Amino acid sequence: MAPVKKGILERLNSGEVVIGDGGFVFALEKRGYVKAGPWTPEAAVTHPEAVRQLHREFLRAGANVMQTFTFYASDDKLENRGQNLQLSGQHINEAACDLAREVASEGDALVAGGVSQTPSYLSCKSEKQNIFPFTRNEFGMNDLFYTIFIFCFIFVLQYFEHVEEAVWAVEVLKTTGKPVAATLCIGPEGDLNGLSPGDCAVRLVKAGAQIVGVNCHFDPMTCVKTARLMKEGVERVGLRAHYMVQPLAYHTPDCNRQGFIDLPEFPFALEPRVLTRWDMHRYAREAYKAGVRYIGGCCGFEPYHIRAVAEELAPERGSLPAATEKHGLWGKGLELHTKPWVRARSRRDYWENINPASGRPLCPSLSNPEGWGVTKGHADLIQHPEPTSPEEIQHLLQMQRKAKTKA
Amino acid sequence: MAPVKKGILERLNSGEVVIGDGGFVFALEKRGYVKAGPWTPEAAVTHPEAVRQLHREFLRAGANVMQTFTFYASDDKLENRGQNLQLSGQHINEAACDLAREVASEGDALVAGGVSQTPSYLSCKSEKQNIFPFTRNEFGMNDLFYTIFIFCFIFVLQYFEHVEEAVWAVEVLKTTGKPVAATLCIGPEGDLNGLSPGDCAVRLVKAGAQIVGVNCHFDPMTCVKTARLMKEGVERVGLRAHYMVQPLAYHTPDCNRQGFIDLPEFPFALEPRVLTRWDMHRYAREAYKAGVRYIGGCCGFEPYHIRAVAEELAPERGSLPAATEKHGLWGKGLELHTKPWVRARSRRDYWENINPASGRPLCPSLSNPEGWGVTKGHADLIQHPEPTSPEEIQHLLQMQRKAKTKA
Amino acid sequence: MAPVKKGILERLNSGEVVIGDGGFVFALEKRGYVKAGPWTPEAAVTHPEAVRQLHREFLRAGANVMQTFTFYASDDKLENRGQNLQLSGQHINEAACDLAREVASEGDALVAGGVSQTPSYLSCKSEKQNIFPFTRNEFGMNDLFYTIFIFCFIFVLQYFEHVEEAVWAVEVLKTTGKPVAATLCIGPEGDLNGLSPGDCAVRLVKAGAQIVGVNCHFDPMTCVKTARLMKEGVERVGLRAHYMVQPLAYHTPDCNRQGFIDLPEFPFALEPRVLTRWDMHRYAREAYKAGVRYIGGCCGFEPYHIRAVAEELAPERGSLPAATEKHGLWGKGLELHTKPWVRARSRRDYWENINPASGRPLCPSLSNPEGWGVTKGHADLIQHPEPTSPEEIQHLLQMQRKAKTKA
Amino acid sequence: MAPVKKGILERLNSGEVVIGDGGFVFALEKRGYVKAGPWTPEAAVTHPEAVRQLHREFLRAGANVMQTFTFYASDDKLENRGQNLQLSGQHINEAACDLAREVASEGDALVAGGVSQTPSYLSCKSEKQNIFPFTRNEFGMNDLFYTIFIFCFIFVLQYFEHVEEAVWAVEVLKTTGKPVAATLCIGPEGDLNGLSPGDCAVRLVKAGAQIVGVNCHFDPMTCVKTARLMKEGVERVGLRAHYMVQPLAYHTPDCNRQGFIDLPEFPFALEPRVLTRWDMHRYAREAYKAGVRYIGGCCGFEPYHIRAVAEELAPERGSLPAATEKHGLWGKGLELHTKPWVRARSRRDYWENINPASGRPLCPSLSNPEGWGVTKGHADLIQHPEPTSPEEIQHLLQMQRKAKTKA
Repeated sequence: MAPVKKGILERLNSGEVVIGDGGFVFALEKRGYVKAGPWTPEAAVTHPEAVRQLHREFLRAGANVMQTFTFYASDDKLENRGQNLQLSGQHINEAACDLAREVASEGDALVAGGVSQTPSYLSCKSEKQNIFPFTRNEFGMNDLFYTIFIFCFIFVLQYFEHVEEAVWAVEVLKTTGKPVAATLCIGPEGDLNGLSPGDCAVRLVKAGAQIVGVNCHFDPMTCVKTARLMKEGVERVGLRAHYMVQPLAYHTPDCNRQGFIDLPEFPFALEPRVLTRWDMHRYAREAYKAGVRYIGGCCGFEPYHIRAVAEELAPERGSLPAATEKHGLWGKGLELHTKPWVRARSRRDYWENINPASGRPLCPSLSNPEGWGVTKGHADLIQHPEPTSPEEIQHLLQMQRKAKTKA
Repeated sequence: MAPVKKGILERLNSGEVVIGDGGFVFALEKRGYVKAGPWTPEAAVTHPEAVRQLHREFLRAGANVMQTFTFYASDDKLENRGQNLQLSGQHINEAACDLAREVASEGDALVAGGVSQTPSYLSCKSEKQNIFPFTRNEFGMNDLFYTIFIFCFIFVLQYFEHVEEAVWAVEVLKTTGKPVAATLCIGPEGDLNGLSPGDCAVRLVKAGAQIVGVNCHFDPMTCVKTARLMKEGVERVGLRAHYMVQPLAYHTPDCNRQGFIDLPEFPFALEPRVLTRWDMHRYAREAYKAGVRYIGGCCGFEPYHIRAVAEELAPERGSLPAATEKHGLWGKGLELHTKPWVRARSRRDYWENINPASGRPLCPSLSNPEGWGVTKGHADLIQHPEPTSPEEIQHLLQMQRKAKTKA
Repeated sequence: MAPVKKGILERLNSGEVVIGDGGFVFALEKRGYVKAGPWTPEAAVTHPEAVRQLHREFLRAGANVMQTFTFYASDDKLENRGQNLQLSGQHINEAACDLAREVASEGDALVAGGVSQTPSYLSCKSEKQNIFPFTRNEFGMNDLFYTIFIFCFIFVLQYFEHVEEAVWAVEVLKTTGKPVAATLCIGPEGDLNGLSPGDCAVRLVKAGAQIVGVNCHFDPMTCVKTARLMKEGVERVGLRAHYMVQPLAYHTPDCNRQGFIDLPEFPFALEPRVLTRWDMHRYAREAYKAGVRYIGGCCGFEPYHIRAVAEELAPERGSLPAATEKHGLWGKGLELHTKPWVRARSRRDYWENINPASGRPLCPSLSNPEGWGVTKGHADLIQHPEPTSPEEIQHLLQMQRKAKTKA
Repeated sequence: MAPVKKGILERLNSGEVVIGDGGFVFALEKRGYVKAGPWTPEAAVTHPEAVRQLHREFLRAGANVMQTFTFYASDDKLENRGQNLQLSGQHINEAACDLAREVASEGDALVAGGVSQTPSYLSCKSEKQNIFPFTRNEFGMNDLFYTIFIFCFIFVLQYFEHVEEAVWAVEVLKTTGKPVAATLCIGPEGDLNGLSPGDCAVRLVKAGAQIVGVNCHFDPMTCVKTARLMKEGVERVGLRAHYMVQPLAYHTPDCNRQGFIDLPEFPFALEPRVLTRWDMHRYAREAYKAGVRYIGGCCGFEPYHIRAVAEELAPERGSLPAATEKHGLWGKGLELHTKPWVRARSRRDYWENINPASGRPLCPSLSNPEGWGVTKGHADLIQHPEPTSPEEIQHLLQMQRKAKTKA
């Protein structure tokens, strides 16, 4: 049980490529275990077999990191966003850590403790100590997280929209002495307060994060571009860091600053945007070229997407993932297909150059994202425990019309 | 263990809607357990936990049928299509039946023994007794299948391209006394020998199938249309049957007679075609209106697709599936989303009318399917145990060019 | 003035390909001389220089026929559809004939008298003699038309939606002894009364038309398909005729029976559908292969479209059109372009295979056509001289919603 | 003949909106009088009636400027780019001026002498006096241009890709004492030497241009954006100018620095990109909001596009163009259409919000532009009088493949 495995920084420092896992909330939503809207991870307690199976699939696909399924598991989120089981954050976090550790021990993977932004921040509690769930006791970290994350090898900040909150989290987590990877869900336009990716990265590195990068909200190519801007920012001020990307598996060229949340298709009609495995090859290569060495995925990533990343970087990593036994690179498995014209597709240049049709001639290629321009502190963003009322919906529809007219 | 559950025909005869499950080979390919190309189900033996989990997800999504994961598990397929584990058909079929039975016992579901077409047929073995793997012994069914399917409540013929072969299968299977559902993978143009859907259905009913329909190869609306043609055909000659559809979860308006196999995106770039859950609502309603009462899915169907079918037909069925606890009908769960503009999407009319963008402006909406026009008996379709050689690929590319010029 | 030129039937009987001209009302609408909505041709009187110039351009592009610009020039149309100049049908028709004759005499072209359907028919006047503007006097044709069409070499019936009315027109016009070409604006589904293309063609041939075919309402490939159905119909009953197509220059794969009128883009947003010259090459070849020998265009056809038709059929016709001096086949003129990468496009295979982008990622590929399903005799189709009132618009919007819900 | 009309600067200084005309070479190419590739204007001599008619249509559409049809009419272009009539630049320029003057005198329009970039510049002649065709005599302007442009009210520099050459032209032309409007064919990325739009504009204003702006190469919204950058640049350094845009009538969101030349559809497959009249309303409003007061069009603009610009700005201008008699604002003419559902489209909100389909499901929305990255001085850009040889095409295709691989 002692960490005989190489730690994350050892790996990155020695030039290894670390493959992350994919997005749990979206994958488990499709499998029936996560509710879109609240997106909370109580399935770690109620359906451990489903969570364990997904961990195993990502491990088999080549992931070197098992990130705990603890998205939005802070008590302030859990109590007012609709999980009616009265499960505490501690209970869920413990269960999630156990699952990640169990599967990590089956292969060459490290457990990473996932930490998310909190609704309290958006609701604009005025004091730092009040808003951050990690900082309630004298040790600078509450007992809860101290206990549950004791076996994690690394903390991963995921899904922070404001660098200010992420910096607070880094400051608390680094008191544990474990490596901290801080990823914001921002694009090239920067965080929701308007800070550029470069400036955000500098602030995170100065706060103590050894790894910085982006996750969620944008497609792979946009995330790589943002990571590149982060790297330039960090290097410009003479600092050093490792870089990480865990993007969406959805094409989002039409997004604005707020990312895919603003697309009209979010979250229930994103299917036509899902990346193919070949898109993932391009992503992996591009991320590698940009100097990113911790390469994983977020919402939309299924195990085969991670496998494609691992397969693309097999030359650099020296090995193929276990799940390649059921694949064959670049369509090679099709050599065994019954139909001759499908066998004729078992070629790299065929799949590398395909421009896949949507089968939806009545649909456009791109959407107009919403752009309400509201952020931290706006009344409509203050969280309340009750579901949205019909009156609130009417109010929101009115605001929406206004936002559209403006654009 | 005795079948105290209502049988499939009891259910259908009493007017119940039976929900089928989704496609195992495509779902498990994405999870890393099935190899595209051979598509054989050896994971039933090697990774039972993955197969069991998928069964559970479909059960939770509302499926009343657990179809055994036995696609292409006939010995003639297994021996010459690249599974190097030397697992026999018997071994795989037994394991698959055990898994289906185990999960079916956890809820209100019946086990259905899945039977597929065989490569021997395409390779045109001349004698009926030689080509069909079920017919090798004196009882009209070989010991193998007799043993393993003993606990199935029903046989489902899936993925037959030629009605002739399906009729042979029905004739053998009906000797067990169990209900037989026969689905062909055909569209409105009929089977690969040119028989219309109506004529195909009549032949299957005359052979003894109590349930007839279509599965795979085409999108839901096309499959419903084909089922309607089958029903008209059967009724025209004064016969009666129950009807069943298990379509693709891919939009395929551009397909020709051979279905999605002919699309250039098959099988590794179909992502942009995946149906949303809202498309599934339309499918379920349309199938119901067409008189189809056994409604499930095939390749591309994930658990949430089946859940959408079950949710649409909840008024008719009188209950919602278990997994609805993590959903909320028509986006209701979004009432709990952090962002107000996403809460504004918790409305049926929003999702019912969305035309989702592909995020792929360089891609077309439709493709030109290949149309080689070769079928049973053509030299290029004769199966051989070796993978495709480089010379064969060259030959195939040449044929492809010819087919394109013709079109 | 005497017809020393070969007549239309001589040409067709000897196997010549006759090139028609393009659509005047749409081309002149874009140039500022025709009002979309009424679509009446008073510009023949008010702006003869504009009409003459367009004739010249089509002549130069290779047209062998100068069709008089007399669309919808019947008195019943003129008086109640908003041309406030009080120009009579006679006045306009005479001016249009003069212009066509003048330009025809400048080259190898024949004058064709264009005759259109009448609003009276749709308004369902009960007596044949009342509804058809050509039949008011004792000679079976009114003096007006007798006078003005005296110099035409041929009559062309254009834009008839109901074969019944077209048959009446043929019967009257054939009394002049001149050849009659009868084109309906129908697609493969047949006329608005539900008669198939084959049956329509047979009725027209029996009525005395020597040339039958289709014009307007559908794209070239659909029109060729329809002409093929007409030919099969005529040949099936042992008759003979020449065939003619004058399609739209807009891609309309999404049309239903009523044609492009039903597309939401009609008539002011059809731009993205305009055919390229290379599409026209395909059209010309396909029409020729189908046995059509009078090949022209309708709405949307600009002179360069007709030139493309003439260029494609130059081998069969033995000559290139005059306007080819400013073209060069298959992009040859680009050999003289400044930029080398544009010079690299001076190749047939480049243009023959191009799939041009729309530059409109927010737009779909296809539309849902309206389908009101109302036709001859419906109250909403009865013509009235006043413009649509706001109340009428409200009523119409309501009907539209109903039609959509149905679909 | 004396300029009793208000001059261009008087108009602009008093706050008037001046409407330009549309693009002659593309419009006349479609009508059969200009050859794509060389794009030279010899039709001014050979087919004056066609050129005159197009001038008239733009006048009728609301244009206040008749720009002489003298694109690329410099002797160095004429002699080595394939017009075999041996017409001199003087001959063509004189004829073009006569035509513009004739039509301008029929309405409220000024004649503008159009001056284009020269191939000599791209071929990199080293001396200023050698490369610019206007500067050959002692007066700083050669006799040729002195003569022919004597009756122009203004000079318009059009289609300059390098600001350096445009500055030289401004310097020569301002010696005539007439107003000079200088438009570059650049986008937001700046000229082909890499100067930003702001810097380009400053240089042109300093050289003496009273009006600066952009024409050709990009779509209206991109051109307005570029003009905005120019205005910001000029104002930043404390200068003043009037602003002008004459964009393409093609949607080109996918263009890079070189503009639509680089799109694979240029010049023979741009049809799906053509703007609707409603797009033109948006353009006119946006240009007006950006402070642009000389608003016209370039390649792709047909008379109805200019009419739409004039109609949108009618409130500001106080009058509608003559051609509106055949239009009716926002589809009002449809009130007189036969079909009720088309009458229901006679509403502004209908046309303002339409997203028109392409009718081309096999085509993408956007293209990958070529990006050879060669400019002034590159061997492949040196002009030669002979057409491109097969060897050159081979060389070019090879370069193209290289450029693609790079991208």
